[in-house]
This record gives sequence, structure tokens and C-alpha cells, in this order.
Amino acid sequence: MNAPVNLSADFLNTIRSIVGEQRVKTDTDTLLTWGKDHTKHFAPDPSVVVFPATTEEVAALVKVANEFNIAITPSGGRTGLSAGAVAANGEMVISTDRMNKVLNFYPADRMVHVQAGIITEQLQNFAKENGFYYPVDFASSGSSQIGGNIGTNAGGIKVIKYGMTRNWILGLTVVTGKGDVLHLNKGMIKNATGYALQHLFIGGEGTLGIVTEAEIKLERQPHDLQVMVLGVPDFDAVMPVLHAFQSKIDLTAFEFFGELSMQKVLDNGHVQRPFETQCPFYVLLEFEAPYEPIMDKAMEIFEHCMEQGWVLDGVMSQSLDQLHNLWRLREDISESIAPFTPYKNDISVLITHVPAFIKEIDAIVQENYPDFEICWFGHIGDGNLHLNILKPEDLSKDEFFAKCQIVNKHVFDTVKKYNGSISAEHGVGMTKKPYLGYTRSAEEIAYMKALKQVFDPNDIMNPGKLFDL
Amino acid sequence: MNAPVNLSADFLNTIRSIVGEQRVKTDTDTLLTWGKDHTKHFAPDPSVVVFPATTEEVAALVKVANEFNIAITPSGGRTGLSAGAVAANGEMVISTDRMNKVLNFYPADRMVHVQAGIITEQLQNFAKENGFYYPVDFASSGSSQIGGNIGTNAGGIKVIKYGMTRNWILGLTVVTGKGDVLHLNKGMIKNATGYALQHLFIGGEGTLGIVTEAEIKLERQPHDLQVMVLGVPDFDAVMPVLHAFQSKIDLTAFEFFGELSMQKVLDNGHVQRPFETQCPFYVLLEFEAPYEPIMDKAMEIFEHCMEQGWVLDGVMSQSLDQLHNLWRLREDISESIAPFTPYKNDISVLITHVPAFIKEIDAIVQENYPDFEICWFGHIGDGNLHLNILKPEDLSKDEFFAKCQIVNKHVFDTVKKYNGSISAEHGVGMTKKPYLGYTRSAEEIAYMKALKQVFDPNDIMNPGKLFDL
Repeated sequence: MNAPVNLSADFLNTIRSIVGEQRVKTDTDTLLTWGKDHTKHFAPDPSVVVFPATTEEVAALVKVANEFNIAITPSGGRTGLSAGAVAANGEMVISTDRMNKVLNFYPADRMVHVQAGIITEQLQNFAKENGFYYPVDFASSGSSQIGGNIGTNAGGIKVIKYGMTRNWILGLTVVTGKGDVLHLNKGMIKNATGYALQHLFIGGEGTLGIVTEAEIKLERQPHDLQVMVLGVPDFDAVMPVLHAFQSKIDLTAFEFFGELSMQKVLDNGHVQRPFETQCPFYVLLEFEAPYEPIMDKAMEIFEHCMEQGWVLDGVMSQSLDQLHNLWRLREDISESIAPFTPYKNDISVLITHVPAFIKEIDAIVQENYPDFEICWFGHIGDGNLHLNILKPEDLSKDEFFAKCQIVNKHVFDTVKKYNGSISAEHGVGMTKKPYLGYTRSAEEIAYMKALKQVFDPNDIMNPGKLFDL
Repeated sequence: MNAPVNLSADFLNTIRSIVGEQRVKTDTDTLLTWGKDHTKHFAPDPSVVVFPATTEEVAALVKVANEFNIAITPSGGRTGLSAGAVAANGEMVISTDRMNKVLNFYPADRMVHVQAGIITEQLQNFAKENGFYYPVDFASSGSSQIGGNIGTNAGGIKVIKYGMTRNWILGLTVVTGKGDVLHLNKGMIKNATGYALQHLFIGGEGTLGIVTEAEIKLERQPHDLQVMVLGVPDFDAVMPVLHAFQSKIDLTAFEFFGELSMQKVLDNGHVQRPFETQCPFYVLLEFEAPYEPIMDKAMEIFEHCMEQGWVLDGVMSQSLDQLHNLWRLREDISESIAPFTPYKNDISVLITHVPAFIKEIDAIVQENYPDFEICWFGHIGDGNLHLNILKPEDLSKDEFFAKCQIVNKHVFDTVKKYNGSISAEHGVGMTKKPYLGYTRSAEEIAYMKALKQVFDPNDIMNPGKLFDL
């Protein structure tokens, strides 16, 4: 198949000479597949997809892109939810698929040096095989790549104990938009020698450069995990329950979901209701219990919460099987509501503000769209809410999404009112770009654009994502 | 007393109108005291010291400084060890001494919002009084300010479990070199909306702007801390001991020191040798033991280490008193060696490389300066070594420091060989400025200078620190 007209033979030959003939693809299948991520709002339209194997090849590609003025879209596991990795405007896609090697392992440092294309699950397994643990985990860990996780500072279900991807990055190798290779922080825990440039690339969505390698900290494996699912009478009760447990036990997760989410998961038939009592909301909490007194303490707190009326009913996992099934009540939500064409939003406010925030959004939706159902769920232990509005059957997809755009405005106004974030863990990409100003001030955005100029003066790196210059 | 000639009456009147007459000082005592930090290599010579009370006042001062082209040195607790807060060239010192208020407390978020001038210990106490814990701790916590800790990304003795200051900063209010006020990240755990600008100011040594407020995460209080001090036969044994404990028990500290350090502390007469056996090196480890089986496990590991010959002798704290005394063996070192005019260095390499690194430095010093004694100690659990060479009695201070400058070169060459850091937790300031290139590449330094231009185009903020433009 011929290359699209906008790429010169000269350019294509040059990049072929860098990565090899077989690693430069211009066939339609490849263009359509590697030109997009998990979003569907923007049609993929890259001009070429390249599969380098090393940092050096990436650097050479970026330099050539600068010479020929060709924009680049970095591409990892393509699981992004904000169109940060969609190449919609003739970009050269640089895929890290072939950069999936473990380069070095430092057991004394509990650290592994990997290429950016390693799959999250592959990293988790490498850690496990070596007696360690990589704690960043989420639904797409089977296909997301570490480079992409770094680009959006991915979070997931264990943040309350382990923090975001950022916490686990001890070093980064990046190729800047100018084509410079920087080895940032080189795996050190302590290094007070000027600006921590690596933190700009973490969460930078590939707009300053491409992450090609990372030194990643590992943790000891968790021991004897236990899960409890508790039913609560209203959202206000969630906060004292969180406090009661968190002040006495180190939680590894504290998730919540509404009855509607529970129903949708149960309708799928894979798992059963954990206890008879139907409750407006549920929390799932997880903790390590390698010592008997921890279980006793958990039971004590549970009973205290029952006495206080904060909890209506509850169950504790009695086996590994039951633990997995309890987790499915939370983890299967996304998949279970997918057939209802949900309008999805990933937002964050201080935990303190969550109850008021949820009430306000519920009221706004109920007032304006009484036939809309809201599925709430999320990582309440870190203030991260997933708001999902289900499409009423009698509404067309287009009508529904048009109405949701108006809801969007209300949601983001409320996020702004509470000083929250319009994107907690999915990044901005193209889908949230128009709303960036709800979370970042005009001055901040101006500084961000100026930083972009420093690392990528020709606006080669993932242009049109995050903001327009 | 009159203001120095280089400040116009117009400028002084303007800044007096911002903070009030009483908050602008030009007397020699104030200039000499607030013009320096804990270093003694550079003579303080500021032209004025100003004590603002709010972010707004700081922003107004920075704007005026830009108009009048007056350089600013931000000043916190003045405990810095790299001359990052020394005003040696007629700068206006902006002291955060009066900005020491707790602005807000969010128990559900385990977060406190403070002004930058709050003393570390004051923050620790506030946390404690509210049932929480602020885990960044070090010798100068009684006088260092949070703003200064942020400026150098301070570390200390609990990093192995709790990480650096950076880990605890959920939000920053900064005044940039241009005088813009930015509210960065606003306390959120999850916020994926573009570049994490706060991380440039953390460890930025006040060269990009002034940190005026911070949202700080708190932790639950540690329970039932236990301390062990173990004697090891050589440095190589430290690594398997670290691994043996760390793989089974969550350590809150893992420190080491040599016999010479021990002797100097014992000579002071405040504490006693923990056990009879003299050993070349000692490790101090700390962990929480709220449950009996943890103590059993610690004893098991200890016995295993004895059997393997990695440990020659050891002691476990039996009371809170003994715990404090064991800690003093490590914490009193700096004070105990101070009379020997030590040449001090604070460096970091991967834990993996520490044994080889120490051997190489020992060999270099022994070969070139057989009469020099090295006191090694440090936070071995995170690769951070404090290298202290004691001055031989018969050498003058000047001769000694001249020779140490040559040793310096060897040390930094070795740091570079192992991809380490010339400053682990003390920053660069002026004392390490000539050596920045040993840890950061020419390209990195060029990007850092370009970032400085973005936030501080007139080079008003702490010029001459970190690098020269």
C-alpha cells in the first residue's frame, strides 16, 4: 500500500533507515488500529505508524520529525479514555509496542528498570515472580503500557495505600520534543539537585516528549488480604465509616458504589448479592490481616458502625474465592453498565466535599432530567468519583449525548465550586480539553504552554492534546 | 539605621506600604542574621529584610522587586546546609517567619493547609494533637520551616517508609518570579489535568518563586515503635541484613554508622555502648510492633542473621527510654563530631552500589590522606550517605579544607561513576553549584535554565543559587 500523499518519500525512507523497513507501516488496518485509543469520539487518521525498539531509535525519529515538521502521537496500550493517544490529523504514531523489555533489576533497591512499552500486568507479574509487588492496578492492566500509565499518572483501586503511578517512578528516560535524551533521576530515592523534570513528563500526556524507559520502585507483596462489603443508609454515613476504619487499620482500598450499580452487576449473573439488605450505597474495604488481632479489630469497628447506624449490613470475605467475588461487585460495574451507553465522567474533589458534591449533582440531574439514572461509583478513599448517567431507553444516542453536554457544564461548574478536578485519573487529551480552565487557572495554563515551548518548540509532540497553543 | 545606598527611598517606601513600616528591617543585626542559613562559607550581605504575613503581600513584594530590579532571597528557618538561603549580594530577604499559621484542617482528607513559615515541629505537634502524624523528621525540625523543607525536598530519618517531603505535598500556593499567584493541585490526591507544576517548586530552592502556603497530607500515628541496634562485621553484611528484615517487616527506619561515629558519640558521655562487642559498622532499624508475632518475627530474623555471620551482636529496645537512647547513638553523631571541624558531604547512590562506593572512597582517602579519619553514617535504607572527614589535629583548618577540595573531586567523580547524586537531601544552593554537572547532564541543566526563564524572566528569584544563568 502506498503512503499517504502528505508524507514525502524522503521522510519515509529516512524513518525506514532508522527502524527498518518492517517497522514502518502505512496500511489502513494498522493506521486505524494504532491511530486510536479506547475513546470513540475522534476518527483516527494518522499517516504512518512506526515501531521503534530503543530510546536511540525514538530520539532519531523525533529529530527527523522536527526536520520534516511532522507531528507525533505517542502510542502505548491504547486504553486511554480521553483521546490522548488518538492521531486524528495525519500524525506519525510512535508505538512503544516493541519496547517491552525488562532492562535491569535491582533487588536491594526494590527497583526494576523497564522499557516504556511493558504491559502493566507484565510488570506486576515480573514483580511477583521476584517476590515483590507493583501496586498500581486498574481494569485495563492487561493491556495498558507503563509508558501510558506514566503519561496520565494512572491511579486505580489501590491509591489509598499506595498512591498514584507518580509515587513509583524513581527515574525516567525521555526523548524531549527537541529530540534530546534525558535520564532523569536515575532511580534515586534522594536527589536534591534542582528541578525534578521527571514530574513534568509524568501526567504530561506525551506533549513534552516521549517516555522511553522507567526505573520503577516495587513494594513487598501484601499479606492475607481481607475484604468487607458494607451497606450504608445514605451517603453521609460513608465518611464516619471511612474514618472509623482508617484510624485503626491500614486500608489498601476503600471503594463505594450505589444500589443501581449493584443491580446492574447482579443482572449480569456472575455474582450474587453479598447480603439480603438492599442499601442505597455500599462500601468495599480491603486490608491486610496477617495477625489475628487485626481481624478482631475490624469486627469491633464493624459492630461500632452498626450500633451508630452508619452501617445496615455487611459481610467479610471467608476465602480467597469470596474475596474475588466481593471485588467483582465493584470491578464489574463498568462492564455491566456499558450496554446502557453511559455518559461517563471521572472527577475528583476533597473527600471532605464528596457528600455535598454528590447531593448537588444528584439534585441537578433529577431536576433537569428526571428520567436519567445515575450510577455512582468510585475510589472514595481518595475523593475520586466515577459519575455514570445511563441512557433512558426511549432516547436516541445523539439526543442523550446532546443533553449530557448540558449536564457536563453543570458537573464542571460544581467541580469548580469545590476546587476539584475535571479529570482525576484519565487525563485531559482531547475530550476534556475544552474544560481544562475549570481546574487550572489562566495563569497556570499560560505557564504550561510556556513549558511546552521549552521542551517542544516546534509543537511536534502530540499537538492538540491538553490545550491548543 | 539608614538603608544601604543601593536601595532607593522610593523602593523602600513602596515595600513599607505593602507590609507596614515595622516589617521592613535594614539594621545590621537583622541583615546579618536573616541574611544567612546554617552554612558559613559565604558572608551575608542583604540590603533589606522584609517580613510579610500573607501570600498577597509576598506577591506585591515580588512585583515591586521586578519593577525596581531587586533580587530576592527567600528565607525560612535558615537551617539549610548548602547556602541556598544566604543573601550575599545585596538581595531583599523575604522571610516567612510571620507566615506561621494553620489555615485549615480537613480531618476526612487527613490534610492540613498551612502557611510556609510554620516550623516543622509545630506541624508535627499540630498533627499529633489531632490524632495524626507528620512523618518527615530530621535534626533541625525544631527550627526549620515547611517552606524551606519544600524548597529542598527535605528527607531525614523516616524516608524508607514515608518518603521525602514531596510525598506529603498535596497542594502548593506559590508566587512565581513574575509575581503570579498559583494555587497548584489544591489538595487533591488524584488530578490528571496537565503538568504537575508543584513538583518544580518542590526542590526548586526558591529559584522559580516563593512557596507561601501548602496543603500537607498527614498519616496515622505510628504504634508501638521498636528499635534494634545491630553490630555487623563489615559493610557487605549490611545489605543481607537490610534484605532479611525488609522482606518480612515494614521498617520505619534503617540507618547505619561506623565504629568511629559510635566512639565520638560515646565520648560525649550522654549514652552508653549498646553492647560489649565493638564492630566496624552498626545498623539501627525501627519498626512498628503492635502485635506480638511481629516481635517474634524480628527475633527470628535477628537469630538468622547471627547464624549467617551477618550480625555479631545486637540489642532491642525494652522501653521508650531505651528506644530514645538507641536513637541517640545515630542522631547525636553530627553534634559529636562538630568539634573536629568535619568536612561534610551528603551524597546518594543506588543501595545496590553503596558497598562498592564506600570501599572506593575509603581507598581513595586512605591512599592520598592516610591521616584522615572518615566518619560514615547515613540513611542506608534509601542510599543516602553522610561522609564526614575529621580534621587531623596537626593540620590547620585552611590546609585541611584545601586538601578536602581535592578529595571532593574524587568523591564526585565516584558519585558520577555510580550515577549518583552530589546532594541527596541538602540541595545545591551555592556550595554544590560548581558540581551540579556531576549529577545532571548539560542538556538537563539547559532545560532547567529555560524553565527558570519561564517563571522568573528577570532573574529576580534567588539568583546565583543552583546554577548561574
